Amino acid sequence: MLVVMQAHATEEQVRAVCQRIEGLGLKAHPIPGSMRTAIGITGNQGAVDLGVLESMAGVVECIPVSKPYKLVSRDIKEENTVVRIPTPAGEVTVGGMPLAVMAGPCAIESPEQAFAVAEKVKAAGAHLFRGGAYKPRTSPYSFQGLGEPGLKILAEVRERYGLGIVTEAVDHESLELVEQHADVIQIGARNMQNFSLLKRAGRARKPVLLKRGMSATLDEFLMAAEYVMAEGNYNVILCERGVRTFSDFTRNTLDLAVIPAVKQRSHLPIVVDPSHGTGKRTKVLPLSRAAIAVGADGLLVEVHHQPDRALSDGMQSILPEEFVQLMREVQQIAPVVGRSMDALAATAR
Amino acid sequence: MLVVMQAHATEEQVRAVCQRIEGLGLKAHPIPGSMRTAIGITGNQGAVDLGVLESMAGVVECIPVSKPYKLVSRDIKEENTVVRIPTPAGEVTVGGMPLAVMAGPCAIESPEQAFAVAEKVKAAGAHLFRGGAYKPRTSPYSFQGLGEPGLKILAEVRERYGLGIVTEAVDHESLELVEQHADVIQIGARNMQNFSLLKRAGRARKPVLLKRGMSATLDEFLMAAEYVMAEGNYNVILCERGVRTFSDFTRNTLDLAVIPAVKQRSHLPIVVDPSHGTGKRTKVLPLSRAAIAVGADGLLVEVHHQPDRALSDGMQSILPEEFVQLMREVQQIAPVVGRSMDALAATAR
Amino acid sequence: MLVVMQAHATEEQVRAVCQRIEGLGLKAHPIPGSMRTAIGITGNQGAVDLGVLESMAGVVECIPVSKPYKLVSRDIKEENTVVRIPTPAGEVTVGGMPLAVMAGPCAIESPEQAFAVAEKVKAAGAHLFRGGAYKPRTSPYSFQGLGEPGLKILAEVRERYGLGIVTEAVDHESLELVEQHADVIQIGARNMQNFSLLKRAGRARKPVLLKRGMSATLDEFLMAAEYVMAEGNYNVILCERGVRTFSDFTRNTLDLAVIPAVKQRSHLPIVVDPSHGTGKRTKVLPLSRAAIAVGADGLLVEVHHQPDRALSDGMQSILPEEFVQLMREVQQIAPVVGRSMDALAATAR
Amino acid sequence: MLVVMQAHATEEQVRAVCQRIEGLGLKAHPIPGSMRTAIGITGNQGAVDLGVLESMAGVVECIPVSKPYKLVSRDIKEENTVVRIPTPAGEVTVGGMPLAVMAGPCAIESPEQAFAVAEKVKAAGAHLFRGGAYKPRTSPYSFQGLGEPGLKILAEVRERYGLGIVTEAVDHESLELVEQHADVIQIGARNMQNFSLLKRAGRARKPVLLKRGMSATLDEFLMAAEYVMAEGNYNVILCERGVRTFSDFTRNTLDLAVIPAVKQRSHLPIVVDPSHGTGKRTKVLPLSRAAIAVGADGLLVEVHHQPDRALSDGMQSILPEEFVQLMREVQQIAPVVGRSMDALAATAR
Repeated sequence: MLVVMQAHATEEQVRAVCQRIEGLGLKAHPIPGSMRTAIGITGNQGAVDLGVLESMAGVVECIPVSKPYKLVSRDIKEENTVVRIPTPAGEVTVGGMPLAVMAGPCAIESPEQAFAVAEKVKAAGAHLFRGGAYKPRTSPYSFQGLGEPGLKILAEVRERYGLGIVTEAVDHESLELVEQHADVIQIGARNMQNFSLLKRAGRARKPVLLKRGMSATLDEFLMAAEYVMAEGNYNVILCERGVRTFSDFTRNTLDLAVIPAVKQRSHLPIVVDPSHGTGKRTKVLPLSRAAIAVGADGLLVEVHHQPDRALSDGMQSILPEEFVQLMREVQQIAPVVGRSMDALAATAR
Repeated sequence: MLVVMQAHATEEQVRAVCQRIEGLGLKAHPIPGSMRTAIGITGNQGAVDLGVLESMAGVVECIPVSKPYKLVSRDIKEENTVVRIPTPAGEVTVGGMPLAVMAGPCAIESPEQAFAVAEKVKAAGAHLFRGGAYKPRTSPYSFQGLGEPGLKILAEVRERYGLGIVTEAVDHESLELVEQHADVIQIGARNMQNFSLLKRAGRARKPVLLKRGMSATLDEFLMAAEYVMAEGNYNVILCERGVRTFSDFTRNTLDLAVIPAVKQRSHLPIVVDPSHGTGKRTKVLPLSRAAIAVGADGLLVEVHHQPDRALSDGMQSILPEEFVQLMREVQQIAPVVGRSMDALAATAR
Repeated sequence: MLVVMQAHATEEQVRAVCQRIEGLGLKAHPIPGSMRTAIGITGNQGAVDLGVLESMAGVVECIPVSKPYKLVSRDIKEENTVVRIPTPAGEVTVGGMPLAVMAGPCAIESPEQAFAVAEKVKAAGAHLFRGGAYKPRTSPYSFQGLGEPGLKILAEVRERYGLGIVTEAVDHESLELVEQHADVIQIGARNMQNFSLLKRAGRARKPVLLKRGMSATLDEFLMAAEYVMAEGNYNVILCERGVRTFSDFTRNTLDLAVIPAVKQRSHLPIVVDPSHGTGKRTKVLPLSRAAIAVGADGLLVEVHHQPDRALSDGMQSILPEEFVQLMREVQQIAPVVGRSMDALAATAR
Repeated sequence: MLVVMQAHATEEQVRAVCQRIEGLGLKAHPIPGSMRTAIGITGNQGAVDLGVLESMAGVVECIPVSKPYKLVSRDIKEENTVVRIPTPAGEVTVGGMPLAVMAGPCAIESPEQAFAVAEKVKAAGAHLFRGGAYKPRTSPYSFQGLGEPGLKILAEVRERYGLGIVTEAVDHESLELVEQHADVIQIGARNMQNFSLLKRAGRARKPVLLKRGMSATLDEFLMAAEYVMAEGNYNVILCERGVRTFSDFTRNTLDLAVIPAVKQRSHLPIVVDPSHGTGKRTKVLPLSRAAIAVGADGLLVEVHHQPDRALSDGMQSILPEEFVQLMREVQQIAPVVGRSMDALAATAR
């Protein structure tokens, strides 16, 4: 923390701030400048909320210096975390050299629909199957997901097609069921700061896919992962899915620079969801290519065999044949960034 | 919904879109223009997701026309909703002619702290007491609130000072306890789209104070209230607390134009939280005046007798003597907008 | 400037950064912390771009500490600047105790229109007349203003009604003409960082009304004023007119907290434009009240006697009778914030 | 345009709106719905500002339907525009099959610096040389560019290295000089809505590189290009350079989805500036790869041989050896999107 004093601050005011800092058990380092004095603070373990110094006489501003995250930080663990997901067809890894592609419909609507899509994405080379049984919808009158019966359909997809399952939990109750039936527990963007849910996910024995909130800063995103890790679950996969800006031609603005930024600060893997990230079917392919080119560890893609009959998010779901093309293009870009497509093949089966 | 066709769309494409619309049980109204054709759609009760038409050949864009909310809308109920809150000192109303001021510390830290602040804000004329027992904090290592013991302190404040209590619930478990001990259940900005929690709040027998999410559009904000109302709880108080923008000199950007905008669309009352809305102690007074001047139904203000020792949000808490000044200034502005300060006095005690 | 080193930075890396700083003629102050070292820098007069230190080995981040503005800063001049505008009816002041209200149509369309509106706003108590002869419009096919003939109409308004004139200049050529005919030179939001125009305005002998850019931070806004002042023109009036955010129910999001924030950092006066700030006629009155309540030095309001026939911005122009009501309400709020309405009366005439 | 009426609007109000529309020489198409009536409008050539209907009794909202741009639109010209730039070494094309890379320092500082960088980027395969002689800087005290002497250095780079020159004009005066000395006239983000400058650029005989404004919507961006084209200059190259959002770990948020969105709506070529788009040297390479993968027609990259001595933007300039790597990686991605790297070789020399 750095405390910036006013140009006209008196020596007494500077001294008072230093005394308050020392009184909190920390060390103050006054730095007299040509215009004003600044005061560096060391010794803070994170427990003291120093923002209050801002209201002392003569103080202009308090500038935080250290980042607040610990377990997610590369300062703690230099090498990349590789999340290992055991599936019927073998172990899928996320965060290693191979890219991981998770694909499937937005919502599970029926066994027929789930099987039809699963067959297609499996054939195209997807490593994991995604599909929602619990759907957070803006309107209470929209389809809210099948709930537990949806999870059972997913469990059947798992058995039939050998695909590991990624699906969302929205509260403690659904998380318990998702933990039973699925391989990866998804926490949606709207729940990124539902800390009660994050803590519960931190006590789960399955990996967590954590989506970035619509207006989450990078620090907030990493701190949400810190909540999960602080409870003991170190298998966190981050997911960029677009942020909310003034830009109105897409549903969200996909912030791809967050990928190298996360890689710099954290050891956790990060994937990209180009479906929510754009909200437009015609933008999913180009942004999938861009996500891999920028260095993402994988993709989370919505695929539907009849998108214009989908009960949710039909606008942004691609067709199975578009997904085949997506996989082909991603495979061509992978080697440019030193990646392969064998997230599954890379493991003993 | 309006479907806009491409300038070069063929008659056949227009016909296909119309047929799809009619096939969904709705009515299509093609409007041929000089450059392009648009197709109006009527008969949709909200159950059909029409966005998928956007992926049909020849379609440029689908523009939603009707607003999706029902129970929150002035179309359904023309007169203002007045939320009535029974307190030991009498009934407090929010949304009628009198303004309602809710004040207290960000977090309940101890009985001494709670009583000290309660005494001051009561004396200054506050109508309700606010204070968090469950605190959603960005960092898992920050003070998370006292939990149930905090609620018991609040219950004691209620009894000692006759003040109704507003406090936040963060999950089903805490909501149950808050419902028991408090008078108004607060749903925080980070949980505005925690639909599971909203539904639970909709089944509670106490009024709900719903804070706008950091990047919630007006429609999403009103739809969140719709979730609560759809479950049967019609006593919803909205709360503007600042939104997230590029503007970096305050913690959030207080979007005061939302007050007249809500009043135009909805019959629900709306209050303003200038403490979170700015995040800076020195901005709380001016923005409180502005909130009342723009037409808000009340204020939610953080007050602490020792803000530089507060366990959370000390930077944005005002001192009791500043709160006295705030009440004085608000009282002077109230008559300009046809309001009074007797939210409590207005009722039989 | 503060340079934050990585947790794992070597002593050698810290030394290298210090040497580079000293090599630039500045002084380095290393502050060793428990986790990492930070290095304070003093002696920088603004000429050295220190951001490059960020690319040195072992450096995490460079944090600017001092604000870059000088002439606009309260550090330089503690008392408020009062801009004095001589008009046929006497001197109008902006920034002193009295509030200044500038009103008129978005664009000057004809002598009849200008006179009709001028008569009304004069009668209602406006201190200055606003109206555009040069209109920056999003589309090249929209009405672009009357140009010089529009300025002549304004000059006639000045003479007939005794009102000082505020009007926009969009390039060097128009600025020269505006300087001749008007009393205040307006620089629009889209030109806030048209530095060539700002420098030219800095050499003008008339006061400048500088509108905040749509996505300008507070620092950029003040630095734009610094451009004008650095050329010798100290009579700058700032104007908040809404910023661009995701929030879509108004045309812009009026950022009223900027008023106390400017007052804290700068001695310059600041007014609010609730017409562009909301883009909706029904929001102009409530936000005008809020602007005065928050502490603005005045208002810039669009008034049109036939807004539904206006050639531009009809949607956000209020009727003369609404302006009368606005003036009445503002007058009632003024004393609460220690202001009066006699911006003109306060001066010898 | 679609006019949405209130649920409770009377028949009379609907009729009044229709009459107003017909009175403006347009055609009204009322569409009665189950809840409310909407009124479609046809026949508008863009000259009538219909927003004013919003203030009529019974009207909720006016929704624009047709896009306002004409010359930039694919509706007018279906095939891609290929901008042809004659250079000493042959014709460079932007918008055809080959990708075009423009590279060079942020600002021209001296002949030595310009030549050193030009030699390196030429050797690495850059097609055009970029470098600013007129620099828009946030602070009036920062280096503002060498001005005309800078242009002369650029002219010498052109001759010595055979590279076409891209450089910024900031006002009429500098544009005249840029038009003389350079091959492409750059209009910066801060001047994207400096309509006076756009009109002047529209009368120039050299291609224009138009950067997206910091908070420009897609429509505003295309309308700015429309300004240039409306004056007769059809050789416009668009450039995405990041937009301003709440996201604070990069200087701007690169909005890559704008590339396929522009391609859908317009025939104009679009390139990406990853240097300003991120503001961080370490992000330039990954985002360059992503830009090509998403479908951009080229790149505009800042390269400096001594970035930590650069007079501006050193933080975001990459080293010549990093540029070599960038070109190598881009070349590998190009074929995946059906592109090549011979923007120059493709033409007769």
